[in-house]
Amino acid sequence: MSTPLHALTGTQVAKLLKSNIITVEQYAAALWDRIQERDSTVKAWAYLDPEFVFRQARALDQTPQERRQPLHGVAIGIKDVINTQDMPTQFGSPIYQGHQSGFDSSAVGILRAAGALIFGKTTTTEFTVANSGPGTTNPHDPNRTPGGSSCGSAAAVADFQVPLSLGAQTAGSVIRPASFTGIFAMKPTHNLISTEGSKSFSPMFDTLGFFARSLEDLQLVADVFALEDDEPPTSVLLRATSVALVKTPMWSWAGPGTVAAMEKAARILRDSGVDVHEVSLPQELGDLQTLKRMQKVIMSGEARAAFLREYMVDNAQLGPEIAALVENSAKYSRKQMAESLDRYAAIRPIADKFVGGYAAIITPSAVDEAPLGLDNMGSAAFNTLWTGLHMPVINIPAFVGQHGMPVGISLVAGRYQDRQLLRVATVLSKPLMVQGAWNFGEALAQHEAPRPEAPCAREGSEPVCRLLRSSVAHPPAHNDLAPRS
Amino acid sequence: MSTPLHALTGTQVAKLLKSNIITVEQYAAALWDRIQERDSTVKAWAYLDPEFVFRQARALDQTPQERRQPLHGVAIGIKDVINTQDMPTQFGSPIYQGHQSGFDSSAVGILRAAGALIFGKTTTTEFTVANSGPGTTNPHDPNRTPGGSSCGSAAAVADFQVPLSLGAQTAGSVIRPASFTGIFAMKPTHNLISTEGSKSFSPMFDTLGFFARSLEDLQLVADVFALEDDEPPTSVLLRATSVALVKTPMWSWAGPGTVAAMEKAARILRDSGVDVHEVSLPQELGDLQTLKRMQKVIMSGEARAAFLREYMVDNAQLGPEIAALVENSAKYSRKQMAESLDRYAAIRPIADKFVGGYAAIITPSAVDEAPLGLDNMGSAAFNTLWTGLHMPVINIPAFVGQHGMPVGISLVAGRYQDRQLLRVATVLSKPLMVQGAWNFGEALAQHEAPRPEAPCAREGSEPVCRLLRSSVAHPPAHNDLAPRS
Repeated sequence: MSTPLHALTGTQVAKLLKSNIITVEQYAAALWDRIQERDSTVKAWAYLDPEFVFRQARALDQTPQERRQPLHGVAIGIKDVINTQDMPTQFGSPIYQGHQSGFDSSAVGILRAAGALIFGKTTTTEFTVANSGPGTTNPHDPNRTPGGSSCGSAAAVADFQVPLSLGAQTAGSVIRPASFTGIFAMKPTHNLISTEGSKSFSPMFDTLGFFARSLEDLQLVADVFALEDDEPPTSVLLRATSVALVKTPMWSWAGPGTVAAMEKAARILRDSGVDVHEVSLPQELGDLQTLKRMQKVIMSGEARAAFLREYMVDNAQLGPEIAALVENSAKYSRKQMAESLDRYAAIRPIADKFVGGYAAIITPSAVDEAPLGLDNMGSAAFNTLWTGLHMPVINIPAFVGQHGMPVGISLVAGRYQDRQLLRVATVLSKPLMVQGAWNFGEALAQHEAPRPEAPCAREGSEPVCRLLRSSVAHPPAHNDLAPRS
Repeated sequence: MSTPLHALTGTQVAKLLKSNIITVEQYAAALWDRIQERDSTVKAWAYLDPEFVFRQARALDQTPQERRQPLHGVAIGIKDVINTQDMPTQFGSPIYQGHQSGFDSSAVGILRAAGALIFGKTTTTEFTVANSGPGTTNPHDPNRTPGGSSCGSAAAVADFQVPLSLGAQTAGSVIRPASFTGIFAMKPTHNLISTEGSKSFSPMFDTLGFFARSLEDLQLVADVFALEDDEPPTSVLLRATSVALVKTPMWSWAGPGTVAAMEKAARILRDSGVDVHEVSLPQELGDLQTLKRMQKVIMSGEARAAFLREYMVDNAQLGPEIAALVENSAKYSRKQMAESLDRYAAIRPIADKFVGGYAAIITPSAVDEAPLGLDNMGSAAFNTLWTGLHMPVINIPAFVGQHGMPVGISLVAGRYQDRQLLRVATVLSKPLMVQGAWNFGEALAQHEAPRPEAPCAREGSEPVCRLLRSSVAHPPAHNDLAPRS
């Protein structure tokens, strides 16, 4: 095997695990080694407990082969706003430091029932609302953000620490970090995956999504969550496919990386025989400034209820922007709230019809490459509309910007066309990934720094060694990662 | 004090507790005695732990007077689909028997921060979906249902066991049991109280609501949840108020109790000077059969995701009707789902405008009195429309049916008019409650059976006595109520 274990996709490793070629424990050890090497720089984890990981791994190894589920032993990181029964869930908030919720959210329960190795909790910004915070870096440049708020979920997958992770998007928190870190991600149609047991921000928009390094892996997770269109996906042929290139009225925000990615995507697809139409959004959707404002009104209105508990319990430890939401300091009225809810609902069928005229629409995933610095996690300017429209979106990490950082593009379909969109993405991504400059193999090679001497190399048995490593994995300042002892 | 402690409203007892006239422990003991006397018949509780109740009570008694919150020491029952950190949450499902979720839902966290005495978990049907189950009886006739699915929450308040309780309504699960048991209840505008940490059924409709024996108490809870209209409520004068009497196209379903209640309400209000217009729903809402079908499509579509976890984890213990939802055995399409979501959204502003022409609309809360038997918890026929429209609804328990059982009527307002509706309800309920035949004092007197000899009367100290009582409070078959030892 030329690819190291930690760099295998979920689908690849699932085959090895199911047929006993490797054990879950061996696999977990390989990921653990990768994390030890890399995570003092990347800082993707809000909580990791090697004891817990290896205990789970050994239990999975006991599962008789015929009872192994589709995700048997495949490691997945869980964004730390999604509750897990056996690890703390801290929501990126000091209020919940060390907080043990003691139960699995619906999504984690499903992943566990599907045999997944629930690896750890990935970093997030405070309640997903803040735009800075956990210090997680972009695996491809530690001076740049991985994007928020699903920063840890994106970084852990992009850094080959785990093959899969779960994130959540209320504005652009899945698609944008996927673009910034150069991985695939899917935000399904709203409410197709239950958000029960996750922190609420704005239920009208909150959507769970998932990250991977292959589209096959997105399919695998979509299977587990029983995503299903009315009809099975139809076959897609490049030469019989028509797509819409939609720059959106936000186009003036697009930086050179995104402008080039969109142009290159159009050219590659045209060269492959795809019928690429550059089109504008239908007039009936209304102007984008109004839509953006409506989105803000809805998010703010729902956040008043979503964060009231934290405001009452520990206002002193609540970020001022979150307190401002509860206090409605923007003075949005309930009348605006109702109007915004209704108006947004009214344009969803218009948008479905527009998008339904094409196999997919192609639109930016982010403004540009990941910006420099960790305090600005980027803008969701190109994401909010599709989130508000409840449409499925897939990030294709095909391109590279001016500074060598990845740049993705989004494929978008109408509501409840999730499986068809995955099929379309699989076909379109082939020429895009081959001819686009982003390359997983190169990213991996670039990361391969000389291994620091393992502190326990001279000190006895492997389990002890792992525990030792865990205790030195992070500087003391990053103490929310301390394993339970 | 002529009213026994257990029969005080939350507002009344809050005053006594705040000013140290009674202690929370004394109050809890009074409620506990009431429960011991009555609950072997009513069976309102899915979980009650006297140790936990009294520990909480003593802790609350330690709170310095100046730091006492609005609900200081006021007892509240929590529907057992809403997670609580220190009690099991069992969702009316054998899958979750003894399940300790270990965290507070958002709503419970808010109540706790407001000083409430979180008394216990009230019974519900399986995941609120089933229409029979927990064996809870109507306090006013043990041969009749209290209505579902918030059966325990309604029964505990109606039986003077606690003054307040939290419920949840996806179709008619708050307003209907309030009508069947003769108490006040409010279902606020959708998403004004966060459902985070509650079991999902259909997020587009799921709404937390609350039960009480006075409108003042509903105000108190509305304060705690920071419900707020755009404008402070305007004053309401009976002689300057116009209301709409809306029988709805379901009127042919109405039994004699509901027909009489609606007639009596109209007459009493007219006699009080209110301008009562009997009007039909606006044509633009579409026909009710279509609306009902759309509601079913949305609920079923969302339930596919909401119960997938339980289906995967323990299908054998899942009720067949819930498994059928996950399997979509009704074969509703995603296309119908999108159309139903959009169509429902489109009529919400139409309905707001219609309702906004009146101080409130008056419409049935239930088909009739609570039906005989515990296996049919009644129909939500008169409730689903308002739930789907996301409108606030208050049950006024003013009337009595042919068998002496209570019959309520609903007051409904436009979205985000929650506080104004409470004001209107306060004014309109005065003549209705005085001239309607339902009477809390009579209900209480009727319940006052001769006290059975307390099994521990001869056996030592009060705490031991309470524990002993708890262990004999229910027949062994009702074993989900066993206190933790």
